[in-house]
Amino acid sequence: MQLYSFFNSSTSYRVRIALALKGLEAGYHGVNLRAGEQRQAAHRELSPIGGVPVLVRDDGASLTQSLAIIDYLDGQYPQAPLLPREPLQRARVLEVAQLIACDIHPLNNVRVLGYLQRVLEVGPEEKGRWYAHWVAEGLAALEALLQRHGSGPYCFGDEPTLADCCLVPQVANAERMGCELSAYPRVMAVYDHCQAQAAFQRAAPGRQADFIQ
Amino acid sequence: MQLYSFFNSSTSYRVRIALALKGLEAGYHGVNLRAGEQRQAAHRELSPIGGVPVLVRDDGASLTQSLAIIDYLDGQYPQAPLLPREPLQRARVLEVAQLIACDIHPLNNVRVLGYLQRVLEVGPEEKGRWYAHWVAEGLAALEALLQRHGSGPYCFGDEPTLADCCLVPQVANAERMGCELSAYPRVMAVYDHCQAQAAFQRAAPGRQADFIQ
Repeated sequence: MQLYSFFNSSTSYRVRIALALKGLEAGYHGVNLRAGEQRQAAHRELSPIGGVPVLVRDDGASLTQSLAIIDYLDGQYPQAPLLPREPLQRARVLEVAQLIACDIHPLNNVRVLGYLQRVLEVGPEEKGRWYAHWVAEGLAALEALLQRHGSGPYCFGDEPTLADCCLVPQVANAERMGCELSAYPRVMAVYDHCQAQAAFQRAAPGRQADFIQ
Repeated sequence: MQLYSFFNSSTSYRVRIALALKGLEAGYHGVNLRAGEQRQAAHRELSPIGGVPVLVRDDGASLTQSLAIIDYLDGQYPQAPLLPREPLQRARVLEVAQLIACDIHPLNNVRVLGYLQRVLEVGPEEKGRWYAHWVAEGLAALEALLQRHGSGPYCFGDEPTLADCCLVPQVANAERMGCELSAYPRVMAVYDHCQAQAAFQRAAPGRQADFIQ
């Protein structure tokens, strides 16, 4: 199994956490998004949208989309299951994962920030406000969901789930971009708890072969 | 079971298609996104992000995020299953669904277009280019995935799946916004096939109680 990833890509980071929680090893291939390697023809063969992560199976089949990849891994490798069996609990975990994956992350990824700057000629200050706006709106909703339905120390109880695989990279990004996070105590408590665990540490950007200071 | 929906919301439309394919009835509650009803306190109780769709169970539990809702319905109501059992086929369906849900739709929904106009003061022409850009990038990737892995008449064979629940509302939106779609023959063949089926027709915006001409 081979993983195409960029150390700083939060969708790649989700898959790295899932692999680490399950104790799985995958060959690591860095795809430098800053250098535009995701748009090269060789990479488009693996990922038509030109992104990471991509998981390539030993038979050569390649899979894109972090949540599809994690669902696949969860089906193939049942240890450390990432989705509860009880239907409503399962729906709660997916609700949090999709909130992050659809309502927060897509607005702030590198291709969107690039378009704002290149095509709409948005300056750095206004780009920062765009970033902070979607983070604030999304994390407020995440905080409300966790306050209503969650229980610590992870998003949903004593074991990590897909929700934690998504929460950690999103909060790490927001922290790196200097967003104000004190209004989300429950989100931050989950984040801090996860960051103290070995599997989450192994998946962190600073621990990857393609890390750039 | 109650569904909070807006006739023109493509995430609501996905859930309506899933309900129709499974032959399920849900009470219909229109939430007028144009009038800002999704931001009212009563609606935030149902959906902290202030969006639609929301599915409310008979016990009062409310669920947000279209793909989490459809996964829940698929687990509870096994007729007309929306995900294949074979692991790689399942991953292919989720890959297409997530491509649409994460890489296309979030960039063009009403709150993002509103921010572009209100905060960044982007004019109608440039807003149209933004819309068309993400549709073109996303549908090119969708076309490539279907060409490689799909088989008609639906996205993946003879039965509709979650992929079709996502494809139809996305293409309908792009059509409504006047995007050029001739470069995606496989996507359009799936779209045309779906639009001829009774379940997809029942879920269409024009057939909902809150439809506005």
